[in-house]
Amino acid sequence: MSVMEDPTAEQTPARVRLRFRPEGGEVRVPAGTTVFDGASWNGIAIDSTCGGHGTCKKCRVQILDGTVPVGRLDSRAFTPDELRDGWRLACRAIANEDLEVDVPPMQTRPKAALVGVGRHVILRPAVIKRYLELTEPTMEDQASDLERVLAPIDDFELKVDLGVLRTLGGTLRAADWKVTAVIVDDRLIDVEPGDTTDRRFAIAFDLGTTTVVATLLDLATAQPLAVRSMLNKQQPYGADVISRVSATMMDPTALGRLTGLAHETLNELAQEVCEAAEVAPGEVYEMTLAGNQTMTQLALGIDPEPLSIAPFIVAARTMPPVTAADFGVQIHPRAPAEVFPALGAYVGGDIVAGILATGLTRDKRIRLFIDVGTNSEIALGSAERVVATAAPAGPAFEAASIRCGMRAADGAIESITIADGALKLEVIGDCEPVGMCGSGLVDAVSELVRVGIIDRSGRFIPDADVAEQHPSLARNLVKIGEERVFVLHWRGDDPAQGVFLTQRDVRELQFAKASIATGWTILCGELGIDPSDISQVLLAGSFGSYLTASSAVRIGLVPKLATTRIVAAGNVAGEGAKMVALSHRERSAADAILEEVEYVELSGRADFNDAFIDLLAFPG
Amino acid sequence: MSVMEDPTAEQTPARVRLRFRPEGGEVRVPAGTTVFDGASWNGIAIDSTCGGHGTCKKCRVQILDGTVPVGRLDSRAFTPDELRDGWRLACRAIANEDLEVDVPPMQTRPKAALVGVGRHVILRPAVIKRYLELTEPTMEDQASDLERVLAPIDDFELKVDLGVLRTLGGTLRAADWKVTAVIVDDRLIDVEPGDTTDRRFAIAFDLGTTTVVATLLDLATAQPLAVRSMLNKQQPYGADVISRVSATMMDPTALGRLTGLAHETLNELAQEVCEAAEVAPGEVYEMTLAGNQTMTQLALGIDPEPLSIAPFIVAARTMPPVTAADFGVQIHPRAPAEVFPALGAYVGGDIVAGILATGLTRDKRIRLFIDVGTNSEIALGSAERVVATAAPAGPAFEAASIRCGMRAADGAIESITIADGALKLEVIGDCEPVGMCGSGLVDAVSELVRVGIIDRSGRFIPDADVAEQHPSLARNLVKIGEERVFVLHWRGDDPAQGVFLTQRDVRELQFAKASIATGWTILCGELGIDPSDISQVLLAGSFGSYLTASSAVRIGLVPKLATTRIVAAGNVAGEGAKMVALSHRERSAADAILEEVEYVELSGRADFNDAFIDLLAFPG
Repeated sequence: MSVMEDPTAEQTPARVRLRFRPEGGEVRVPAGTTVFDGASWNGIAIDSTCGGHGTCKKCRVQILDGTVPVGRLDSRAFTPDELRDGWRLACRAIANEDLEVDVPPMQTRPKAALVGVGRHVILRPAVIKRYLELTEPTMEDQASDLERVLAPIDDFELKVDLGVLRTLGGTLRAADWKVTAVIVDDRLIDVEPGDTTDRRFAIAFDLGTTTVVATLLDLATAQPLAVRSMLNKQQPYGADVISRVSATMMDPTALGRLTGLAHETLNELAQEVCEAAEVAPGEVYEMTLAGNQTMTQLALGIDPEPLSIAPFIVAARTMPPVTAADFGVQIHPRAPAEVFPALGAYVGGDIVAGILATGLTRDKRIRLFIDVGTNSEIALGSAERVVATAAPAGPAFEAASIRCGMRAADGAIESITIADGALKLEVIGDCEPVGMCGSGLVDAVSELVRVGIIDRSGRFIPDADVAEQHPSLARNLVKIGEERVFVLHWRGDDPAQGVFLTQRDVRELQFAKASIATGWTILCGELGIDPSDISQVLLAGSFGSYLTASSAVRIGLVPKLATTRIVAAGNVAGEGAKMVALSHRERSAADAILEEVEYVELSGRADFNDAFIDLLAFPG
Repeated sequence: MSVMEDPTAEQTPARVRLRFRPEGGEVRVPAGTTVFDGASWNGIAIDSTCGGHGTCKKCRVQILDGTVPVGRLDSRAFTPDELRDGWRLACRAIANEDLEVDVPPMQTRPKAALVGVGRHVILRPAVIKRYLELTEPTMEDQASDLERVLAPIDDFELKVDLGVLRTLGGTLRAADWKVTAVIVDDRLIDVEPGDTTDRRFAIAFDLGTTTVVATLLDLATAQPLAVRSMLNKQQPYGADVISRVSATMMDPTALGRLTGLAHETLNELAQEVCEAAEVAPGEVYEMTLAGNQTMTQLALGIDPEPLSIAPFIVAARTMPPVTAADFGVQIHPRAPAEVFPALGAYVGGDIVAGILATGLTRDKRIRLFIDVGTNSEIALGSAERVVATAAPAGPAFEAASIRCGMRAADGAIESITIADGALKLEVIGDCEPVGMCGSGLVDAVSELVRVGIIDRSGRFIPDADVAEQHPSLARNLVKIGEERVFVLHWRGDDPAQGVFLTQRDVRELQFAKASIATGWTILCGELGIDPSDISQVLLAGSFGSYLTASSAVRIGLVPKLATTRIVAAGNVAGEGAKMVALSHRERSAADAILEEVEYVELSGRADFNDAFIDLLAFPG
């Protein structure tokens, strides 16, 4: 990942079309992408052992249609006849126009993994090991220890960390000059005694505001070896990003403590997954991390205040090179950390990871991606064009501001249906309900709207109308104090002791869903499409994944589409983090997303308020 | 400085000749050098404000003879007529053949300093400051804080340290978007509030085995503001490099302690020079360091054992990028440290600095450079070709193994002459002598050889012969125990209470000078020249600088040349460290020395022992 942010770079690079024969895949990629990357990002395997440095000369492809100039390395790899016939090295062939490319069958089938939302990732980790049997130095051959190690690794231009040199001399001599070089991207991070080439691991982190997940990956097999999650230890400073940023603004020592708590969380998880899989922390040579921008800045000790105050400015869209140590993660002491770049203060690395994992910018279909939460991120588009925005939905979906709201834990009502004049509840843990989580809230409102107890404006209908239309449910609509509530579960005769939905809860949800709906409505306008043109809606995040598709449609959270088109995408941020750990090619893809996706700021828009008010009501 | 060590690089790149008009200077540089660098290394000033990035377009020169292809930036800077007339940007004009170049007079005379041995260094420090008045972000302009700072610095491709981001947001807002960017080479290391462009400093260190010297430099004026020196705190682990390396081999915790002591020494000096000049340590943005390879590896915590055991292998000839913090020096927390590269285990960064400071590889005259010490480094040549070696002279010159030897401190005899049958002593501090330092030893032996009391083989002549030839000195040649000694200063009647020279002392000096003389004799053979072809002998180091030229000739330490040709070069390692702090162009020159100077290993040579035995005797 480059550190540079080039403010002069074009915002919307032209796309070109790559058609691959004989498999017949077709993809659109930004002009300037190599044929190798374009194929790799789309799950089409091309032979290579050097990792795209132009030295192994295995990635031979034939350009059947379109022009790719002959490069310096092409002239060495092919005969003049072959060059005239369009043969090129895929890793050096820059696609600046539409191309048709013939990919010869692979000599050896590369390892691959299915991750994200049906993404086929070819295993090409940034972590590489090379076993070396070196000749001992003599008075006639006094090359430095470092030169001796680097000489046989001539397909890389390696940078070297000082820490490697500290012990290099002793290691080489104790290991009788038989050592394994550990390379991550373009850095030599260690030289280990003996042949350790079959041991290389990485940890992919999903650093959420609420939950943090770590996955230990075996980079030799592409298999996850252990997964652990825990609550973010920053919780005492507030449930959402705004309260955590506020804490740093009120107390100058809070940033240091929040950073420390993030480090503790990440490191405890790292030690747990290593222990579970019997992997030494020193064998984990890289970590990848997808988090929202506030979590990322807090974890790196970067002042988050500008994120929270208009005009909402990130410190950097692409982080400078950082290490696992910068995140307090005690794996290999020189392990780098690959951090997802951010599109903006509220469309952060977690969403870029989600876009990568869902293939939103690579798919021909128009798809809508929504990560539902306090701050909801929305992206819409296809390989042609993707636009994205953030909608401040408020805490309704986290159930934090809901009177009987609770996290999705034992005792939470997670699903509600009304059938034959009776309520049917599904409760997590199959125990007596004590509250409702976000999906329960959406279901409750959705069902009450469907049967007419809540009207389209969001108001409970008069008691008399309920008594007439739904006599069996009339006793559930009562008053607690001055407020009308609908009791979902009675505990004795006092409604205040039960689980209930208040008029105010309904309003909270209306504001939240209107905010999100305004987001995708404006994005549809940007693309010039109608919501009915959307092929698929991907609901991401721990909340989105549990949402009932029909309820989401009924309250107007998502466009009115067949429920089969509305799918739970799961923890896509975590999947994206795994993808870039398994393939350094996928990080070029992640970086490309910064250029490919246009950020649309809602706050500044004249049409926002009009659309929002239109969308407050529930759909007919 | 590049981290890469390319073992395939040619050892002896071709040289080309650059003639500059109208000043008429002529230099030879390695092919591939830019005209700008070639001029700069030789003290010829060419206009430039961008530091050679091809953006200021001020370094306009006209190629009068020879060919330089038209570059991309040349086409933008010049009209077709001008290009045909040979106009080029000097910073982009690569000299691959002999060239004659017209340099237009400077618009503004650049600051320069005279350092090293008459080296004219044009002030172009790697530390650059840019004052920026930025526009505040708005909802319409949500560029990241980092993008906003980098946008106006478009003539650099800057890398950014994580530490900069940690406080960037707060600094920009507190300073009302008026800030100063601090750049060192290609790194943005800080963003400071307000305009601080007139405050920028660096510290140049000479890290000696015995003495460490720090010079604080004002990079705005090229002036040294303060100089301090102290004994290397590693002294308790032994006076020479071998005993310090041995300490690390006998005790696994010693390396850590030696590293810590080096850090203490360097940091105390840094704080002292800052205090003396009233400069805040945080305003010192870079340090440079010249040290022998053992001192450098110990200071960086790099296992030194392979340096001390045949075949004498360095960890790396060019160190990876390191920071002042890696040396324990508490100046700006992200200040880089520029470390001189080494030619070999015993021709280290101090000698490369010395070669830079003396201009050995740039001068047309054939010159001999000797850094006299326990390990003596010797370089010989001119701009045509330079060869170098290391001679293990033993501790005679440090006076450590000399019976009445002492450091050059109060009470040390530093000069001796015999005239009219009487001894004449010069004593440091003008007090009663208590011992002799290295230059006193050389003088004593030289004078006794001259008058014949020591014969050419190095033996005291028989008592009877002294009594006959030098009756006034006969009482000084006595026995202490079984050993014959020559008393230089009596303290009472017991010779053992005085200051005296032993037969064994003479032998020690003979071995030392023979070792050095063998070194330059073999180097003369390598170049195919006679010692009388040498135009100048440069004696470097604290010892070399105090040596009497005539004595050095008489004992055969240096070739038999007119004494006016034998000059004290002073602390050239420290001067080299200052040069690279003042000019980042000089570090390219230092890196080039690695390729320009051929290292000749003495230990492996068949002719070494023969030459050594021949040279043990004193010249006739």
